[in-house]
Amino acid sequence: MSPFKQESHKLLVIPGPIEVTDEVLYANAHPSMSHMAAEFVPVFGDCIRMTREVLYSTTAQPFIISGSGTLGWDQVSANLVEPGEHVLVLNSGYFGDSFAECLKVYGANVDEIRAPFGTAPTFVEVEKALSAKKYKLVAFTHVDTSTGVLSDAKGIAETVKRVSPETLVVADAVCSVASEEIRMDDWGLDVVMTASQKGLGTPPGLSILVASQKAIKVFENRSSPPTSYYASWKKWLPIMQNYEKGSAAYFATPPVNLIYAYNASLTQIMKQSPSLEERFKLHKEASRRVKEAGAAIGLKQLPQDPAFAANGMTALYLPEGVAASDLIPRLLKRGVVVAGGLHKDHKDKYFRIGHMGVSVVDKSRGDVDKVIAALQESVADALASKKTAPLSEPKREHHEKLARSIGAARL
Amino acid sequence: MSPFKQESHKLLVIPGPIEVTDEVLYANAHPSMSHMAAEFVPVFGDCIRMTREVLYSTTAQPFIISGSGTLGWDQVSANLVEPGEHVLVLNSGYFGDSFAECLKVYGANVDEIRAPFGTAPTFVEVEKALSAKKYKLVAFTHVDTSTGVLSDAKGIAETVKRVSPETLVVADAVCSVASEEIRMDDWGLDVVMTASQKGLGTPPGLSILVASQKAIKVFENRSSPPTSYYASWKKWLPIMQNYEKGSAAYFATPPVNLIYAYNASLTQIMKQSPSLEERFKLHKEASRRVKEAGAAIGLKQLPQDPAFAANGMTALYLPEGVAASDLIPRLLKRGVVVAGGLHKDHKDKYFRIGHMGVSVVDKSRGDVDKVIAALQESVADALASKKTAPLSEPKREHHEKLARSIGAARL
Repeated sequence: MSPFKQESHKLLVIPGPIEVTDEVLYANAHPSMSHMAAEFVPVFGDCIRMTREVLYSTTAQPFIISGSGTLGWDQVSANLVEPGEHVLVLNSGYFGDSFAECLKVYGANVDEIRAPFGTAPTFVEVEKALSAKKYKLVAFTHVDTSTGVLSDAKGIAETVKRVSPETLVVADAVCSVASEEIRMDDWGLDVVMTASQKGLGTPPGLSILVASQKAIKVFENRSSPPTSYYASWKKWLPIMQNYEKGSAAYFATPPVNLIYAYNASLTQIMKQSPSLEERFKLHKEASRRVKEAGAAIGLKQLPQDPAFAANGMTALYLPEGVAASDLIPRLLKRGVVVAGGLHKDHKDKYFRIGHMGVSVVDKSRGDVDKVIAALQESVADALASKKTAPLSEPKREHHEKLARSIGAARL
Repeated sequence: MSPFKQESHKLLVIPGPIEVTDEVLYANAHPSMSHMAAEFVPVFGDCIRMTREVLYSTTAQPFIISGSGTLGWDQVSANLVEPGEHVLVLNSGYFGDSFAECLKVYGANVDEIRAPFGTAPTFVEVEKALSAKKYKLVAFTHVDTSTGVLSDAKGIAETVKRVSPETLVVADAVCSVASEEIRMDDWGLDVVMTASQKGLGTPPGLSILVASQKAIKVFENRSSPPTSYYASWKKWLPIMQNYEKGSAAYFATPPVNLIYAYNASLTQIMKQSPSLEERFKLHKEASRRVKEAGAAIGLKQLPQDPAFAANGMTALYLPEGVAASDLIPRLLKRGVVVAGGLHKDHKDKYFRIGHMGVSVVDKSRGDVDKVIAALQESVADALASKKTAPLSEPKREHHEKLARSIGAARL
């Protein structure tokens, strides 16, 4: 146990950054260390090894780089695509839009399959697109943080491998690594990109990307050089290989303290209880509880098919007549920090709750209970406040019904 | 004062990362916070304001982005240069080579003035180059961390303004911000780029760049879009403007904990004692002491002109017959961590000592005394160990003289 206790604070349950453990924060407060120090090399090396293991891979190549999750898009765009090549983006929300935009900046010819709000592209659509044109890669958002829609990563990879075996399969898994099961080798994913501040339970500041050996070969066989300097695997591959082998190497100074913090979190995920399998179950259980509690008070989920809703977050429509500014401050007053909407066309209609990492794994914290109770009270309170304002009769009836159901749900 | 005390550790005196204060590390262990939280917005806003103030600027635009210092090169290359445009790099070492390489990745036509090892390009050479060709920008390394050579930033800016007033002046100041005086507005610098882990006294993980309004206009008048996604000012400019104005905005998740840490360090630099002016004097004083102590035991500096040696670091040739592997472990045994050589043609011939931030500002720590004592002992020890091996007569005499002078210097 760490001798360090973090300061008391509001419970952070947005879809990242998430609550992190005292051990992780204490590691982030490690005294300054040289990035070339003999003591630091195995700390970084173990991060590389454990990152591979979180994805059940034995051969893939992790890249752990100072940056936001967004930098993963640049890594994919600048290293795996050459200007003019065709790529297909399966767009299930805000992050699909952005990934497509990033790919275009680096010269890719981007086609998109744009799913209706609250859904993901279907296998049939993917098969049709792949049959019509040869794509260098297919990219999808595993969990679109803007909608909470979970894509079927395994099914997408199977479809691509079957219809167009040479095409690389790229998962934007920023909001899914360590909260959703991802079996990189078994499923045949070529890139899984993420960030430190979600399921991986570390403060933000690390772009974490894992590339299959097939992807590395595609990179190595480029006919033109990578189109980014900072995101170039030509620079980073030897660095990662060296640290994993046990020797320091230099391209750009790694964020040493964050690497210590990430090591502490990965150690908790991979080497302590619960197991990784159990961790996924706990995320499913917490997710089910939050979603059922929402349903019990009449809050509808954004994802149209409950089978394809994320387990690490929940996106819920606001009650009719209630604005985000009515609800979120009421949750805040109860010590619970949730997030507003993000999808550009719908952002005022919904809000988002994260349930990842220590908040769902360490039940003794009672985080999920606290979130559910605060949600029930805040919705009831927001609805009650609306009663003082004149309402049309059907709206009033709807609100009263909701308020009653919330009262019942609390018992 | 922070209730937190960092763990005891070896004294880190490489040219970055540097020793940081307990307050900074405690801020880095801040509980998880939303990047959109009302409490976080002014913390980030103050970082932006204080970053401008460290450079004595009133109008320039800071960018504080998750990444290494290296990302600053991508920012310059992708936002201020359009493919095919001509740029001039004043190359004083390893980092000039890298900046030039980065510029080429983004399509710049790069000319270099390559200075002999241990020197920087002269004003005469700069004037000649600028008279012969029109350049979009001139880039120089303020302190080349590979050699410890300090360039005359003010003089370079004056020369460029006089000969080619439209040309932008870009300072790679990774190893100089907050350890060397930089007056951005007065001197007419258009870009000053740095990182968090050197004079700014924060753990690594922030790319910090400040652009003049002239540079921002050049960016805004581009005829083609920026050639990076993650480093695009089109994305980051509204984010920085919003946080400074007091409202959250989203492009990529900022490294929240590092922003708290950076805020803590900037607060110590800008709002506590000593003043910024005094801070620069203290860096000069520490630098003089280390360089004089080196000279007293016969260690020659890399910079050929002592007037153009950095004040935040010292690069010293190893004594004749002594390898880095003879000296550095001896310093380590005495609890002092220095850095080896980095310049590719000379890296086995020298070593580097950093003296920045709290190590020079807080004299009560005695860091500089400790470094000097450990250096004297370790050099004497390394030389003595060589005596057991057969030496040629002139070498032996030289070593004995050195060992005697070290004994004297210690008294």
